[in-house]
Amino acid sequence: MGPSFSLGASMSSLLRNDLDVLPPLGTLARGEPIQVFAAPPGTPAKPQIARAMGIEMWDTAGNRYLDASSGPVACNLGYGNRRVLDALTSQAEAAAFANVSHFESKANRDFAERLAEAAGPGYERVFVVSGGSEANEAALKLARQIALSRGEASRWKVISRQPSYHGGTLGALAITGDPSAHAMFGPMLQEMPKVPAPVTYRIPAGLDEENWALKCAQDLEDRVVAEGPESVLAFIQEPVGGVSTGALVTPAAYMTRVREICDKYGILLIHDEVMSGGGRTGAFLSHDHWPDCRADLIVMAKGIGAGYLPLGLVLAPRDLVETVASGGGFLHGHTALGNPLSCAVGLAVLEETLERGLVERSAVLGAELKTRLWDMANRYPIIGDVRGKGLLMAVEFVADPATKRPFPIEAAVPAAVSRIAMQNGLILYTRGTNAGRDGDWVMVSPPLVTSDRELDEITDRLEKSLSQAEAEFSSLRKLGN
Amino acid sequence: MGPSFSLGASMSSLLRNDLDVLPPLGTLARGEPIQVFAAPPGTPAKPQIARAMGIEMWDTAGNRYLDASSGPVACNLGYGNRRVLDALTSQAEAAAFANVSHFESKANRDFAERLAEAAGPGYERVFVVSGGSEANEAALKLARQIALSRGEASRWKVISRQPSYHGGTLGALAITGDPSAHAMFGPMLQEMPKVPAPVTYRIPAGLDEENWALKCAQDLEDRVVAEGPESVLAFIQEPVGGVSTGALVTPAAYMTRVREICDKYGILLIHDEVMSGGGRTGAFLSHDHWPDCRADLIVMAKGIGAGYLPLGLVLAPRDLVETVASGGGFLHGHTALGNPLSCAVGLAVLEETLERGLVERSAVLGAELKTRLWDMANRYPIIGDVRGKGLLMAVEFVADPATKRPFPIEAAVPAAVSRIAMQNGLILYTRGTNAGRDGDWVMVSPPLVTSDRELDEITDRLEKSLSQAEAEFSSLRKLGN
Repeated sequence: MGPSFSLGASMSSLLRNDLDVLPPLGTLARGEPIQVFAAPPGTPAKPQIARAMGIEMWDTAGNRYLDASSGPVACNLGYGNRRVLDALTSQAEAAAFANVSHFESKANRDFAERLAEAAGPGYERVFVVSGGSEANEAALKLARQIALSRGEASRWKVISRQPSYHGGTLGALAITGDPSAHAMFGPMLQEMPKVPAPVTYRIPAGLDEENWALKCAQDLEDRVVAEGPESVLAFIQEPVGGVSTGALVTPAAYMTRVREICDKYGILLIHDEVMSGGGRTGAFLSHDHWPDCRADLIVMAKGIGAGYLPLGLVLAPRDLVETVASGGGFLHGHTALGNPLSCAVGLAVLEETLERGLVERSAVLGAELKTRLWDMANRYPIIGDVRGKGLLMAVEFVADPATKRPFPIEAAVPAAVSRIAMQNGLILYTRGTNAGRDGDWVMVSPPLVTSDRELDEITDRLEKSLSQAEAEFSSLRKLGN
Repeated sequence: MGPSFSLGASMSSLLRNDLDVLPPLGTLARGEPIQVFAAPPGTPAKPQIARAMGIEMWDTAGNRYLDASSGPVACNLGYGNRRVLDALTSQAEAAAFANVSHFESKANRDFAERLAEAAGPGYERVFVVSGGSEANEAALKLARQIALSRGEASRWKVISRQPSYHGGTLGALAITGDPSAHAMFGPMLQEMPKVPAPVTYRIPAGLDEENWALKCAQDLEDRVVAEGPESVLAFIQEPVGGVSTGALVTPAAYMTRVREICDKYGILLIHDEVMSGGGRTGAFLSHDHWPDCRADLIVMAKGIGAGYLPLGLVLAPRDLVETVASGGGFLHGHTALGNPLSCAVGLAVLEETLERGLVERSAVLGAELKTRLWDMANRYPIIGDVRGKGLLMAVEFVADPATKRPFPIEAAVPAAVSRIAMQNGLILYTRGTNAGRDGDWVMVSPPLVTSDRELDEITDRLEKSLSQAEAEFSSLRKLGN
């Protein structure tokens, strides 16, 4: 396979054989019944939450669980954090809400200022919304207004990676690399160009990680040229990936080239740090691991509100925002935009994270966790790969570690592992992005406040669960060998 | 003008002459500097919120304001409501968050159940998200999955009204009737068909309100036929409008025809009750005012969380949701989906609204407010129209009440009136949808808990502000007379 192979060919080697076939609707959302709203018939009832404290959760039947995934990789501080709850109560008593078109708030100012400090030079302005999808949508619109303010009205295409995840609203979905979701909702959104993600586990034959990463970066440049650079507004990527790639850590060579390509063609670089930001990877922003690839805009959510309330935001440089402001301001808003309660919670989460040294703790604990997961990988052939940085970590399952052959989609292995783990009082997170076609993995991403003793208990329960999963899926492992 | 005139002709008679010209960027977001993020140079500093209680707000300089707009028509219960704050604190102490893929919660169940009761038969299921844009996006995706589950994959177009507002995310913006915003962000979204809104103030010559409404309904049917009915997924409308139309109350004849047209062509009807739902119009859902026009899906936000935290939701009938569930479930989610804290707050807001009789109160208070506003309209020629239902009310400004000629856009009259009112300690809400081209109005929409004495104070301060505005804009009123 030489450097001339097409995106289609390179992708099909990464994913399952049946990528191009829309699966029957019944399998699209497999293993993910949602709330009391639309669970498929036969879905087992979920336990009802009673209370949660630290990394422990109890259901109404009295069962205790350890949260080894921070919910959906969000609850960085665990549950019941005193400082955050006090900030929540105190701001709610004073003024939960004040409309930004009438009032500013100290909570908004302080949060923005402290966050800009934590993000480092070049990210002085903060636009506060209520979640990751909203934040990605805001970043897209802000990027567009930046281009307009530069007189570049022809720029509107936002290139992203395949696979990737940037949110569920239609604009965020348009830049999400998830062919199954596009098969359903594609007509309702403006399709955006995709380029292959520089995956590190299933690299095409004849290439090593760096060659493949550089090939992927070249695919990006080729795509920019093919689309017409004057039409390309931005490139968006997750420096450390989430559930769509199983915590893919972008190779350094790719990151360096991405910044060069964006500079060469005047393209804005957006880093989606929804899952990776806020200290989870052992740096406050995961892109700090690659100092020569600074984004123009940064999107955060999840860990920055730590689950205490819906929170997302966009970080942007002062000069770009001032350009937009001079053109009349950012034409975008939501009811809860920058509301005092959300900002007060965000500030408390941030202070707790920084003052307790949780960013550093994530690096240390993550290194230990990774060692233990690799140790398990050596003993349980169901594990094909362990990936991630800090406490953003994933375990990939394979039917055969030698060939890296995945399990059949219908087996829904990650959902089964998650279910087995819950029976053992352990919470793992998985989500069938692209209907599970991009790989089988669960996130092992405990809160940053996890103690050494708790990590022991997590790894004990995880090993027990893997051992049971290994037995349950042994027949599938042999099939096709 | 006969029944054969085109959409273009009918629209231009409703709006300003320069509809088709994209205004210079500097005027696009006029009067709407946003948070500490991107205020245009020269924007006056906003007061900083200190505390709020009932309908009163205080800034850090000690100034007192009466909130006559419920913030952005959201804070239905005013501020500092004891029941809501207690529910917030109590749920936050127990478990602010539990991921829906691991746990269900009593708060989610109770909220969904109580809300379905309040909404009445046909709306048994509730999908809980974090705001109006997210809720509209969820409704679009749910509608698409309903069509797919019926084997109608060709349906994807969502028709909406011009003007209208359904949110800021790109999918919600695509169905928002706001040509200025589409001029900026259009290339990044999938454009959706628009039909004229049945406005009641500037009706084309030769027609009365009902004829014009029926003409608009016919435009909808014609558009369905022109697009190809098999391609049309849904029609979405605000039964009582918000800031995009200045609380337009849809004529009854139009509502009846809309339901007939949707039934005739198998099109889902979505009611956006983001601003109008939750009791604000004197009915729990504003569409209850038109019993023969029941929606298939209902979108709520704003008043349902009453500003206490970011909250939005979709109401749907059990049978449609079960069809989607049987097909594998709703392929959509967010981190904060159905989270316990949001649901606990939503439940408390709902109980407070129902048990204190605030829906009925809104009807009574709204009728009184409308009488007083019309009385002012008779004395201040700057007021051209008063529209709305219950406490969802708007006042439209005109340079000349006889010809209904609006003020020049550059005068930014609604923003100026809002500024004058704030100087008088009165909060009014306005928002330059379509860069102010669709009309000049402010929302007068106080919390549902407003007392008689507070209503007196609101109307006193409003009259003082209108009197000052009348003087300030008198030169513009004479121009062109």
